[in-house]
Amino acid sequence: MSIQNPVFIPGPTNIPESLRKACDMPTIDHRSSLFAEILPPVLAGVKRVLKTETGEAIIFPGSGTGGWEAALSNTLSPGDKVLAADFGMFSRKWIDMCRRHGLEVQVVEAPWGAALPVGEFAAILAADTEHQIRAVLGTHNETATGVRSDIGGLRAAMDAAGHPALLFVDGVSSIASMDFRMDDWGVDVAITGSQKGFMLPAGLAVVGVSRKAIAAMETARLPRFYFDFRDMLAMNPASGYPYTPVVGLLNGLKAAIAMIEAEGLDAVFARHHHIAEGVREAVRAWGLPFCATAPESYSDTVTAIVMPEGIDGNAFVAHAEKRYGVSYGAGLGAVAGKVFRIGHLGQLTETQALAGIATAEMAMADLGIGIAPGSGVAAAQLFYRSSPVLAQRVAAE
Amino acid sequence: MSIQNPVFIPGPTNIPESLRKACDMPTIDHRSSLFAEILPPVLAGVKRVLKTETGEAIIFPGSGTGGWEAALSNTLSPGDKVLAADFGMFSRKWIDMCRRHGLEVQVVEAPWGAALPVGEFAAILAADTEHQIRAVLGTHNETATGVRSDIGGLRAAMDAAGHPALLFVDGVSSIASMDFRMDDWGVDVAITGSQKGFMLPAGLAVVGVSRKAIAAMETARLPRFYFDFRDMLAMNPASGYPYTPVVGLLNGLKAAIAMIEAEGLDAVFARHHHIAEGVREAVRAWGLPFCATAPESYSDTVTAIVMPEGIDGNAFVAHAEKRYGVSYGAGLGAVAGKVFRIGHLGQLTETQALAGIATAEMAMADLGIGIAPGSGVAAAQLFYRSSPVLAQRVAAE
Amino acid sequence: MSIQNPVFIPGPTNIPESLRKACDMPTIDHRSSLFAEILPPVLAGVKRVLKTETGEAIIFPGSGTGGWEAALSNTLSPGDKVLAADFGMFSRKWIDMCRRHGLEVQVVEAPWGAALPVGEFAAILAADTEHQIRAVLGTHNETATGVRSDIGGLRAAMDAAGHPALLFVDGVSSIASMDFRMDDWGVDVAITGSQKGFMLPAGLAVVGVSRKAIAAMETARLPRFYFDFRDMLAMNPASGYPYTPVVGLLNGLKAAIAMIEAEGLDAVFARHHHIAEGVREAVRAWGLPFCATAPESYSDTVTAIVMPEGIDGNAFVAHAEKRYGVSYGAGLGAVAGKVFRIGHLGQLTETQALAGIATAEMAMADLGIGIAPGSGVAAAQLFYRSSPVLAQRVAAE
Amino acid sequence: MSIQNPVFIPGPTNIPESLRKACDMPTIDHRSSLFAEILPPVLAGVKRVLKTETGEAIIFPGSGTGGWEAALSNTLSPGDKVLAADFGMFSRKWIDMCRRHGLEVQVVEAPWGAALPVGEFAAILAADTEHQIRAVLGTHNETATGVRSDIGGLRAAMDAAGHPALLFVDGVSSIASMDFRMDDWGVDVAITGSQKGFMLPAGLAVVGVSRKAIAAMETARLPRFYFDFRDMLAMNPASGYPYTPVVGLLNGLKAAIAMIEAEGLDAVFARHHHIAEGVREAVRAWGLPFCATAPESYSDTVTAIVMPEGIDGNAFVAHAEKRYGVSYGAGLGAVAGKVFRIGHLGQLTETQALAGIATAEMAMADLGIGIAPGSGVAAAQLFYRSSPVLAQRVAAE
Repeated sequence: MSIQNPVFIPGPTNIPESLRKACDMPTIDHRSSLFAEILPPVLAGVKRVLKTETGEAIIFPGSGTGGWEAALSNTLSPGDKVLAADFGMFSRKWIDMCRRHGLEVQVVEAPWGAALPVGEFAAILAADTEHQIRAVLGTHNETATGVRSDIGGLRAAMDAAGHPALLFVDGVSSIASMDFRMDDWGVDVAITGSQKGFMLPAGLAVVGVSRKAIAAMETARLPRFYFDFRDMLAMNPASGYPYTPVVGLLNGLKAAIAMIEAEGLDAVFARHHHIAEGVREAVRAWGLPFCATAPESYSDTVTAIVMPEGIDGNAFVAHAEKRYGVSYGAGLGAVAGKVFRIGHLGQLTETQALAGIATAEMAMADLGIGIAPGSGVAAAQLFYRSSPVLAQRVAAE
Repeated sequence: MSIQNPVFIPGPTNIPESLRKACDMPTIDHRSSLFAEILPPVLAGVKRVLKTETGEAIIFPGSGTGGWEAALSNTLSPGDKVLAADFGMFSRKWIDMCRRHGLEVQVVEAPWGAALPVGEFAAILAADTEHQIRAVLGTHNETATGVRSDIGGLRAAMDAAGHPALLFVDGVSSIASMDFRMDDWGVDVAITGSQKGFMLPAGLAVVGVSRKAIAAMETARLPRFYFDFRDMLAMNPASGYPYTPVVGLLNGLKAAIAMIEAEGLDAVFARHHHIAEGVREAVRAWGLPFCATAPESYSDTVTAIVMPEGIDGNAFVAHAEKRYGVSYGAGLGAVAGKVFRIGHLGQLTETQALAGIATAEMAMADLGIGIAPGSGVAAAQLFYRSSPVLAQRVAAE
Repeated sequence: MSIQNPVFIPGPTNIPESLRKACDMPTIDHRSSLFAEILPPVLAGVKRVLKTETGEAIIFPGSGTGGWEAALSNTLSPGDKVLAADFGMFSRKWIDMCRRHGLEVQVVEAPWGAALPVGEFAAILAADTEHQIRAVLGTHNETATGVRSDIGGLRAAMDAAGHPALLFVDGVSSIASMDFRMDDWGVDVAITGSQKGFMLPAGLAVVGVSRKAIAAMETARLPRFYFDFRDMLAMNPASGYPYTPVVGLLNGLKAAIAMIEAEGLDAVFARHHHIAEGVREAVRAWGLPFCATAPESYSDTVTAIVMPEGIDGNAFVAHAEKRYGVSYGAGLGAVAGKVFRIGHLGQLTETQALAGIATAEMAMADLGIGIAPGSGVAAAQLFYRSSPVLAQRVAAE
Repeated sequence: MSIQNPVFIPGPTNIPESLRKACDMPTIDHRSSLFAEILPPVLAGVKRVLKTETGEAIIFPGSGTGGWEAALSNTLSPGDKVLAADFGMFSRKWIDMCRRHGLEVQVVEAPWGAALPVGEFAAILAADTEHQIRAVLGTHNETATGVRSDIGGLRAAMDAAGHPALLFVDGVSSIASMDFRMDDWGVDVAITGSQKGFMLPAGLAVVGVSRKAIAAMETARLPRFYFDFRDMLAMNPASGYPYTPVVGLLNGLKAAIAMIEAEGLDAVFARHHHIAEGVREAVRAWGLPFCATAPESYSDTVTAIVMPEGIDGNAFVAHAEKRYGVSYGAGLGAVAGKVFRIGHLGQLTETQALAGIATAEMAMADLGIGIAPGSGVAAAQLFYRSSPVLAQRVAAE
């Protein structure tokens, strides 16, 4: 790839100029008063972005995967039962993690491209009258398939069943890009990373924890130390950290939150929808199907596009990178080779989106896919010209 | 404009990542040994890029305009006669500068869009048997009209006339992007800036000086100090400077030359031609005329495009910036309002070029210009797909 | 603190200019060919720095604490017995981690200031004829006390006892600053972070793993996923990562290793010794005792200095930061308030070391500590003037 | 030198972190609305720093030397008479520039180390009853000797003589570091650069112009184009520029002014005095004379120190750079070899000043200069400990 071109992977996103500068810090003493100007506003800001007033924010040096592990190990004990769906690469990996931690996972299989099967979950939870299920896992946005699921609906199902299980939600590729309501949805552990909606380099696992999850720490018997909520909750209030924090990324997160809030969370979501809809218009013009089967579950951060029969999606990704220096997301797991993905999260302008669409057209034509040259671009242009949103505005710096 | 989008002005160019880092230096003592690791390779490298072995390179803190002034004030005396053509905004301004310095300028008027009228120059020079013309001014690439002129032909005309005048060439928007041959063409002062083919921020006037120009210093009576060649030529060999040098930009220039030479000058020129030709294909698909009237004078660094009757080119530029955050070049001087310009110099990828074309299409459509949506993009795609050049390759890191 | 002043904490260190630039990258696709230019040289380089040819290098997004956890969870099972000494804050925390993972720890108490008690370990290992001890923990450099321990001697003791336990070594504040010999010393898991000898921001746990440790993975029953060696070892050879890598820091690590090897590992160690000895000369001139009780265990990366009776070391640290904007290390755990620490690892010049010594003198005088003004500076000057090492040389960039 | 060490040259200064970031910009279109957010606040801010309400600020891409030339060529005509003193390297060079521009210079010779001889100027001006002197040149702070002159006194002398000459003041190494009062002192052209009190890289000539100087433009016959005030004054009000501006440096200047004003001009001056007085205390402790002969003319931005007999100041500077990687200012012109200079302008902390003093002591001792080791450091420590100013405070981020 060429570093001059934007990336069109579903994270890490292109990093806004001002956030790169916020991350690129000289060393400060993390036990000095300077760090106390960074951590508290970050924690408060994360809570606002997660829309939780009663929960706490915790930030680990690590990736979103570390956030998954923190959710499990701080609240559960070996042999505990969890309910999860396998409907994409990332939901599948989380199930694998549960198993490696000695948890018993009740897996609901769903088609890759469908949303989390709320109805089946509802039935299972209603049937679990003895409340053996200790936790429910939900992937808010399946990055592998470009599918957004209905976490509010999942909460409603849990409430309807009167089920006391904890609710853990992977919001890695949704939080700060699409609406996420931790308190409203009764999410007990919400998980994201620095490299998606927060537009930073990877390196931070950003976690929201409900009071119920905090209470569960007391009885959880899975071993933990690095990802232990307790040390964080004990030390953070005085701007302390149980080990060396990643100061530059935290400073970047402070700046990212300020940037998001200057624009306004709703405006950020509307902008993501606007850019995404232009991309989807292009895909429709190409005549290619979405991997996501239901329009109401289309993701505003990533679009997975089904390749025509006989065309290897991964060959497309490799060709686009090699010949044009542009990176798209490959298909993963059950849809490897069958789809390619256009990531469109973070601070992307219309011009950048068109660049990604135009380059995809070249690569598809090179591979013999019969799309009309410029057709996707023209469709997206038409949409962007008439949309009331101006994505470029926010990047005026 | 949005700083996320590439600029499509004909300089300053988009700055490659590694060059930004090379410029962004902590303060070093310019009288220390560290500066001696910067200046000598820069001067040697500039000579190679200018293709001069016998001349010298001189670099002033300033803009290309300062280079114009240095050419005049170091070699001429009040009342001296110079020959110049008015065929674009930048050639016209140089004429104005001559007059403000008390020089007598014989101006050849030429249509804006035509190349420097070598034939008329030849006739004038042949007729000047008393050699009253002391200097001939040539603008290699008229940035205002997107026209490249035939400096080799101009030299041939001077030689045919046996005329001893000095030859000064404005290569601001050609050098390091299109072939320039200082020694072969007998250029006495060649002028460029840091912000064009060298892909750096503005701030340096980069000048090549022939032995004949150096000799002319001895008799030139125009006053000068800041732009005096003599102090530079006296102090530079020991890495000295007559005043504080712009160390960071010089370090950037060292890196830029290394980058250009790693790719190879010919490859750099071919890449510029490749990107430019894609843009021209788009313009042809739109059915809009080039400001440049002769195909052999099409510039590979900037394309000026004639707007349809009734459309104000400057309104287009303003609209594109305001609505889409993308900057194009406005029309200047005699072609103000009549044209807009797409700058395509420096390290631009195919994807970036397509982004500029696609956004221009949106802005044109918004203004009611009847182009087929996506048509320019499709034409450029077709060209880029089949071209043997891969512009993105050079920007791999 | 002031970000203009160097930090004198024992890590994170001051970050060399070129390493900051190496870390500050635009987003690249970590599944693209560009990442394949980063990870392999990093892994190979870490092995050279650790001095292992037979082991493997693994790098987690995280802190050194994550490296500790990786060592335990990949090789041990609940209830396993480990042998460790409590002789400083960091050795103590590792013991705590073992216990939270359900391991049985045989703790040898040693004075804080003494080195790891190799003799007592030898006796215990010799007595453990049934080999119930599965792992021995050694802290190579106790950052809290400024004490370097004899890991080679520990290995000799294990060998003398014919004991098959695994040997885990915390080299967080020694590796890349002081000699470390993974293969020679038979270290099974060696642990460091990015923010110490590698001079980068925090954010990477850097781990070396022996073949014996790799074999132990197969039977280890502690749960793990994030820090699982298996996924790393399976994916790294093809430049893959089990989750999103921290690309910028890895690129910085590539540059750091190149910088270290350009200087030469032995020269790096000699330079650390040179700077450290100047600091120690200052401390001797002040007449203050070292926390480290034996000269042969003086650390070359951090010096802990015992405050006079009645003076709170933490008050000193707070005062120096508040009034002079300079950060020193506070006393931790059992020596909190009794000592303060001067960190002198990474790329520190003589001039920077003198700045830290001179400022400490001001702060001590302010607190009423009766040292002769300038006495420490004078002693360090004398040492640096006569030392054959020129620390500043390496930073000439 | 080592780029880790601060520089102790009298400009360019060490660049504060936030100003480096402000300068390091991606390319923006200087004809777009973004540039209009930069230039107007810069021009307004420069006027506040110069303390002029009636004058105008003009900023050229160039060095302070360009500002000198702009002053002359915009207001004077060939053969005009100017009054100037030769009392240091920079006042001498300005005289040379006048002569190269065909001006007649009445030179008052003064000892290098003395201030501008206001009394002699007063006598000459009083005697010039025909007002043949068109301009008086004053160097506010002679960087070569560390001498500040009394510009207010010079104005008083001009007023006493009822002399209408223009007053040009070189404030390159004083403005923004020491009090400068353009309106109060009736300065017609005030000149500085970006790399001194503004703490930026070199590359901008910053000029203040009075209404009287603007009026003089109309009759001035020296040729000019690049440095012509007229184009700037015509275009700047609409954020236009007669040629490509150095956008990054202008953005840095905007940030520098904001930083200076956040601290407060008076506080900036007090801080410079505080740091300077510590350095002077060190020099007194060493027993070395100041080049500046009168205490009231001691400069707060640079101290020139007279070497003992038989010691070459330039050898000292070379040795300090080579062995310790620290740059001091060499002696220039008439005091070459006789002095060395410690620059202490810009955002220097006490700790950094002590580092420069301590390193100078090492280098002096190496050359056999009999100073007591640590004596200068001790004297400066004593001063900094008791001073009410806290230089480090301003550099907290």
